[in-house]
Amino acid sequence: MPDLKMDAAALRRFLKDEFPQVEGMFRIESVAPMQARVVLPVRDEHLRPGGTVSGPSMFALADVGVYLAILAMVGPKALAVTTGCSIDFMRKPDAARDLVADVELLKLGRQLAVGDVRIWSQGCPERPVARASLTYSLPNA
Amino acid sequence: MPDLKMDAAALRRFLKDEFPQVEGMFRIESVAPMQARVVLPVRDEHLRPGGTVSGPSMFALADVGVYLAILAMVGPKALAVTTGCSIDFMRKPDAARDLVADVELLKLGRQLAVGDVRIWSQGCPERPVARASLTYSLPNA
Amino acid sequence: MPDLKMDAAALRRFLKDEFPQVEGMFRIESVAPMQARVVLPVRDEHLRPGGTVSGPSMFALADVGVYLAILAMVGPKALAVTTGCSIDFMRKPDAARDLVADVELLKLGRQLAVGDVRIWSQGCPERPVARASLTYSLPNA
Amino acid sequence: MPDLKMDAAALRRFLKDEFPQVEGMFRIESVAPMQARVVLPVRDEHLRPGGTVSGPSMFALADVGVYLAILAMVGPKALAVTTGCSIDFMRKPDAARDLVADVELLKLGRQLAVGDVRIWSQGCPERPVARASLTYSLPNA
Repeated sequence: MPDLKMDAAALRRFLKDEFPQVEGMFRIESVAPMQARVVLPVRDEHLRPGGTVSGPSMFALADVGVYLAILAMVGPKALAVTTGCSIDFMRKPDAARDLVADVELLKLGRQLAVGDVRIWSQGCPERPVARASLTYSLPNA
Repeated sequence: MPDLKMDAAALRRFLKDEFPQVEGMFRIESVAPMQARVVLPVRDEHLRPGGTVSGPSMFALADVGVYLAILAMVGPKALAVTTGCSIDFMRKPDAARDLVADVELLKLGRQLAVGDVRIWSQGCPERPVARASLTYSLPNA
Repeated sequence: MPDLKMDAAALRRFLKDEFPQVEGMFRIESVAPMQARVVLPVRDEHLRPGGTVSGPSMFALADVGVYLAILAMVGPKALAVTTGCSIDFMRKPDAARDLVADVELLKLGRQLAVGDVRIWSQGCPERPVARASLTYSLPNA
Repeated sequence: MPDLKMDAAALRRFLKDEFPQVEGMFRIESVAPMQARVVLPVRDEHLRPGGTVSGPSMFALADVGVYLAILAMVGPKALAVTTGCSIDFMRKPDAARDLVADVELLKLGRQLAVGDVRIWSQGCPERPVARASLTYSLPNA
């Protein structure tokens, strides 16, 4: 298993510099080789009628989670681009709890990376609210 | 082909009443049986570095487009819920052009609906920036 | 729109030479720039109890259809590899009718191609039984 | 966690009775609540040029694996139908090794079930060749 090129602190600095509008939305909880845990602190703007979190908010959480797990492995130079996503919404998230995304990179090739994500409401990991898989294209540096 | 239960004006009123936070984000351009065209007027909040539109913005556009196409057919009482989405991001959208989503419902059953979406930058329909398919669950009224 | 590098006859010869076990399973009906129509003559081996066609048979039809549409554009040298597929099964195919796949290439880049497929039972194009999208990786020659 | 309604032996008998053409293709290795492991003994008919296993064979393995995991939970009466699948092909399977599918049911609702699958070549679980997620519709009995 290769080493990390960026740890959680380095990823936070990178987001702050490069994606300031995204940085405040998510909290990087932990990073390990081929893995990351990222949290979406749920706010009014993420909610939908009926006391649930919007689909686009969960998509955004899965997307940024895989992006950060890739950056942790390849370093800040790479310009990874999402090429595809499939996502299943399985249960209604609890509007009163933050959302946690557990990311696992299943493949990190020269051209393509594939990440698998489970999303759950804080405190309820055994009842995932969504699962997603994302494909990123890794342009040749 | 069954008739429309709601036309574009009725859908606009429904969004305004039920999803006021969503209503201002999208423009319903046209509705026909099993079809809809919805526009995302691109604003600063949708942009990403490099002059492109964010993935979550495109996901949100596809999602709302299929939702509206379903409502047009089944009327305002139904509580349709997104159960899954697959999306391919194929080209970089132009940050200076609004995004147009052409929605086609391929199935509208008693329990499940499937919608197909092509997204393109205004003026460039022949070069789609994304395609998506979404599945909605239709709870028994 | 670029020209075809292989027409239907050239694709048939290529399949016969390179994939003899696949060639007899499908019929190439027509090819045009970025498009193809391929037929699965339904046989006993494709059927499932209840008089329907199996999911893997429909997946195989969609997969070979996009492969042939790519080859028609890039010629017989390319070694395209399926990297992903999303498929929705929407209606029960009629076991007594052949299955037709209409393929449209939405993107044909240097590294990635994306194809969109609608599958219907012969004679019933207005009621698609499945839709699929497939991503192919195109290795540098 | 609810109990199993069918164990591996009961599932084998069910396949033999109801899907005789499928039963000989797969080996049910183990079943547990919300989980199953199913093996595809790779044969000539599954191979493709270049010494690899075909995509449709992997799709069929994932599909039958989720079906069996559902049956184990709900019993032999249910008529579950695949409504959707997304699959990523990540590495070339080894033609000389059988394929193993590890299935986890992430949701088993009244109308919909979602299963997650990792496929690997026997002996190489740490390098999955494919991942898939499948959605099944569960008709009301």
